[in-house]
Amino acid sequence: MKTQKATRKQTKFHNQRLILKTIYIYDRISRADVARATHLTRPTVSGAVAELIEEGLVEEVGQGQSEGGKPPILLSVADDARHLIGIDLAEGEFRGGIVDLRGRVVAHASLPVEDLNGSLALEQVYALLDTLVAATSRPLLGIGIGAPGLIDARHGLVRYAVNLDWQNLALRDLLTTRYALPVYVANDCHVAALGEYTFGLHPITSNLIVIKVGRGIAAGIVLNGHLYYGDGSGAGEIGHVRVVEEGIQCQCGHIGCLETVASARAIVKQAQLLVQEDTHSALHSLAATVDAINLNTVYHAWQAGDAAVQALVETAGRHLGRAVANLIGALNIHQIVLAGDLTCFGDALLIPIREEMQLRAMEPLAAKTQINLSQLAGDIVIQGAAALLLANELGLV
Amino acid sequence: MKTQKATRKQTKFHNQRLILKTIYIYDRISRADVARATHLTRPTVSGAVAELIEEGLVEEVGQGQSEGGKPPILLSVADDARHLIGIDLAEGEFRGGIVDLRGRVVAHASLPVEDLNGSLALEQVYALLDTLVAATSRPLLGIGIGAPGLIDARHGLVRYAVNLDWQNLALRDLLTTRYALPVYVANDCHVAALGEYTFGLHPITSNLIVIKVGRGIAAGIVLNGHLYYGDGSGAGEIGHVRVVEEGIQCQCGHIGCLETVASARAIVKQAQLLVQEDTHSALHSLAATVDAINLNTVYHAWQAGDAAVQALVETAGRHLGRAVANLIGALNIHQIVLAGDLTCFGDALLIPIREEMQLRAMEPLAAKTQINLSQLAGDIVIQGAAALLLANELGLV
Repeated sequence: MKTQKATRKQTKFHNQRLILKTIYIYDRISRADVARATHLTRPTVSGAVAELIEEGLVEEVGQGQSEGGKPPILLSVADDARHLIGIDLAEGEFRGGIVDLRGRVVAHASLPVEDLNGSLALEQVYALLDTLVAATSRPLLGIGIGAPGLIDARHGLVRYAVNLDWQNLALRDLLTTRYALPVYVANDCHVAALGEYTFGLHPITSNLIVIKVGRGIAAGIVLNGHLYYGDGSGAGEIGHVRVVEEGIQCQCGHIGCLETVASARAIVKQAQLLVQEDTHSALHSLAATVDAINLNTVYHAWQAGDAAVQALVETAGRHLGRAVANLIGALNIHQIVLAGDLTCFGDALLIPIREEMQLRAMEPLAAKTQINLSQLAGDIVIQGAAALLLANELGLV
Repeated sequence: MKTQKATRKQTKFHNQRLILKTIYIYDRISRADVARATHLTRPTVSGAVAELIEEGLVEEVGQGQSEGGKPPILLSVADDARHLIGIDLAEGEFRGGIVDLRGRVVAHASLPVEDLNGSLALEQVYALLDTLVAATSRPLLGIGIGAPGLIDARHGLVRYAVNLDWQNLALRDLLTTRYALPVYVANDCHVAALGEYTFGLHPITSNLIVIKVGRGIAAGIVLNGHLYYGDGSGAGEIGHVRVVEEGIQCQCGHIGCLETVASARAIVKQAQLLVQEDTHSALHSLAATVDAINLNTVYHAWQAGDAAVQALVETAGRHLGRAVANLIGALNIHQIVLAGDLTCFGDALLIPIREEMQLRAMEPLAAKTQINLSQLAGDIVIQGAAALLLANELGLV
């Protein structure tokens, strides 16, 4: 039960955030138009704007159209008033960026983590953050982290991240202590969805699903403008739902999971089998050994028109289409975005997904569902982690 | 974007609802304890309570434990201060009830609708409501309706209800005009979830899924204490997601939908086939003709230990278990409740569902998911429709 009363202090905080958000969304807007848009009084708006200018978050950027009298001064959020650090604890490599208030990544850094796990992996997180913190030229708003596995975002706790061998790691508290900055931690696919929602080029909507298909597969879900985590931080863990009866063993212990047939890892494995079976495959000329075949090799064989490789991509798309149909049945969200490494195949992946979705979900719901590729590319988790910070610290999502 | 400022009037409204909700939840509570629970001042609480007593919603019900001085007077919500009408526009029969503020159905009424649709079906809704309105002995809070199909709850619009042959029917507006009462309309499975959430005996939770398995199959989803409808009012339409490859044709036009293998209609159909194939079936002695076999016959054959019928129930459970695994992958909600006609099979249905769910969804998520039978039985939609009204008119959900 909510037992929070509305106090004057909360009202002031609420109104100030509302004003900042209005200026952020409209980009260039006069005080009078802020008052009109928010239904707040002019003195309330002027007072709050004075404070926001004082804090450097808002600046006056010129004059608007006159409505008869003196032309009004336009306000804008100073995009580089704060820097945000966004981190993507991706498999194989920890990646980070310095991000401005509009989600632009102004600097990148990364460190390999190939076989590191446990406390050694944590040391790499520190090393990456040390580099990024030292590289910022603006006041730091804080740190956002997208981490793999089951992440309790409320407590900043990595409950379970298999590859990093982290269990119940209080990552937020460790980083808050070390850097004396606000820190937010959430699942990488969850923050990817928030990144797409905040900085992506999709129609205005309050619900959004982002399916990230890389080495693994999972979805992030934005509901009513907020990230939805699920009761056990596992919302969107579609990669470990069975889609193939009598399928192959998954890392998770079950059989026939979506990840075993539609992830980048699965496609690479299937391509390796293909090379052993088919001496005509374009893969032969692209990789010296079977083990040297990776997603990049597969991509080039696909581009070269190798029919067997094209069939692999199509089959992956069909399996993803099943997962999409399940998501439509559960959530009926009209905007679905595909992110992650497999988006390199573009329409070759999208078209079978769309076809299966139409066949497998209720017709009037599937007909209105749009599924497209993310425009954020490889920085989606970095930008998403920054968006998580932006939402929590400034209410700007 | 939210552009709603916090005003004094809103604050007063918010606080009054908070106080009523606190008294409703605690059941018997003193003014001092309401102030403690809500962090509101004693004068604010006393003022609001005086108004609630004036309106008849709250009453003084005796004395509590003394904390040293005079024992405090206890407050309680007067359960019969208002009557609510809840309607279930079920297939074959429209059912309604007069419901008190605690969700107890104090009177029932129903009308057959076998072959009626279009405006004739609407006339039956009027007839049922006329009966119920005339039968109330308390001030009526309003009318809640659970209707089949895609229902735009925000506008009270029946977008699409196949069996009733209603399309874009402005049911809320028609009823508001006719009865001059607040009216809320939503999908029957959606309101069933709200009913279970509000009046059911489940652990305190803010997220809940109710899967209703009757002639059709669909789920209702409560997220963060509120019904989740989906972008096109189709959240939880799991009955029309494919679960069987090369399956049979569904009414919806697709093949292999969950409804074709796990609904009451599907089980009855399969039992009818069974009778034609198996001369030893217990169904023979229970039904004079194949067409006379209904869910009741199937239930009695199942009770009599007919192995083939038992297998039908188990198979339906296994298919439902797939759908549950999909829901876990999408939503990771720990509390799932099964409602509808098929709950008559109890554990025979639940056990295969639980087994499949464990095999088919991510282990740590499935392990924490509870799936149980609703205790609300046949009135779940009536009570849910009343809960929808209660939530919207008094904030009591």
